[in-house]
Amino acid sequence: MTEVATARRSRLTPEREAELYGAVLDLLREVGYDALTMDAVATRTRSSKATLYRQWGGKAELVAKAIRCLKPGSLADFDTGSLRGDFIALVTREDDGQIEQNAALMRGLAMAMHGNPDLLRAFREFLIEPELEEFHRVLARAVDRGEVRPDNPAIGYVVHMMLGAFVTRTLIDELPPTQDFLISYVDAVILPALGVPTT
Amino acid sequence: MTEVATARRSRLTPEREAELYGAVLDLLREVGYDALTMDAVATRTRSSKATLYRQWGGKAELVAKAIRCLKPGSLADFDTGSLRGDFIALVTREDDGQIEQNAALMRGLAMAMHGNPDLLRAFREFLIEPELEEFHRVLARAVDRGEVRPDNPAIGYVVHMMLGAFVTRTLIDELPPTQDFLISYVDAVILPALGVPTT
Repeated sequence: MTEVATARRSRLTPEREAELYGAVLDLLREVGYDALTMDAVATRTRSSKATLYRQWGGKAELVAKAIRCLKPGSLADFDTGSLRGDFIALVTREDDGQIEQNAALMRGLAMAMHGNPDLLRAFREFLIEPELEEFHRVLARAVDRGEVRPDNPAIGYVVHMMLGAFVTRTLIDELPPTQDFLISYVDAVILPALGVPTT
Repeated sequence: MTEVATARRSRLTPEREAELYGAVLDLLREVGYDALTMDAVATRTRSSKATLYRQWGGKAELVAKAIRCLKPGSLADFDTGSLRGDFIALVTREDDGQIEQNAALMRGLAMAMHGNPDLLRAFREFLIEPELEEFHRVLARAVDRGEVRPDNPAIGYVVHMMLGAFVTRTLIDELPPTQDFLISYVDAVILPALGVPTT
């Protein structure tokens, strides 16, 4: 495990960064966003609060970036050669256990966002905006390949469809959003709305 | 205004019921679910707590039914002769001001559900289940008319699509789910997924 010396450097190593994010996620699961303090993060990761504030500005940004770190690989890296392939790669990034665990974490944070505008802002800036941009790149490739017409109005709603499936699965069906459900949703809703044949 | 005498009857008149639900919604907007007490509802509506408990069992059921009362008319009543017509009637039931006001109320209740399993249960029983059934009837009519193929897999996801659009609009776009947005979503996503031409 790296020590205080590493944290003092102006740039953290990717390993040290991952370790810090891991600790933040552990603390989030243990106490929730509102009770999470920079002091607790500093103690748990054996770093100084000054380092944490210098690197992340504050709790909201640190938490948003830790959540971003949960998603292995960038969506834009999934260049499978077909839109369906890219979407399937996307929704199978995490196994069902991870999906359920992270969905619980996200529900907790969605609650916290209600009373913390800075958390909502950090989520928009460090999670939603980058995700939207990556979706746009994936869709631009599909348009370039001729899979999707450039004027298809569903292009602007792909993230609504994807995130909406995620959010509503538990509420409507009392079931977690598993890989099977998400793949089935891609095939039944997202690809048909985009005019892409699914077989 | 009706008085205690009315509330003592074993069945409330529809007017009295609407009045009670209105008071519950006012209180919900003022203090939120967690701080709402049956005592406050009884005082505000000049009824006895015994009446409230006899009629609604408890706070969760009373609140879920008050929310149900917000939606004017039953979805199944919108028999316009086409699926698009039915959906448009559905998403224009409330004007933009009402949609935004109710979306804020629903966000507050979604937060409360997190820590109140009885509220979640009441929502499922008195709001989500009836809504699902009404959607099924609307879709069954579309299948009967030959607008939608009976084996279209998107049939099972119509409520996910609709509710997902509602929930994700503010998060993704920082905009309220207006009538224009919802109509555009119906045309861009829901009807194409169901294989219904939109022009």
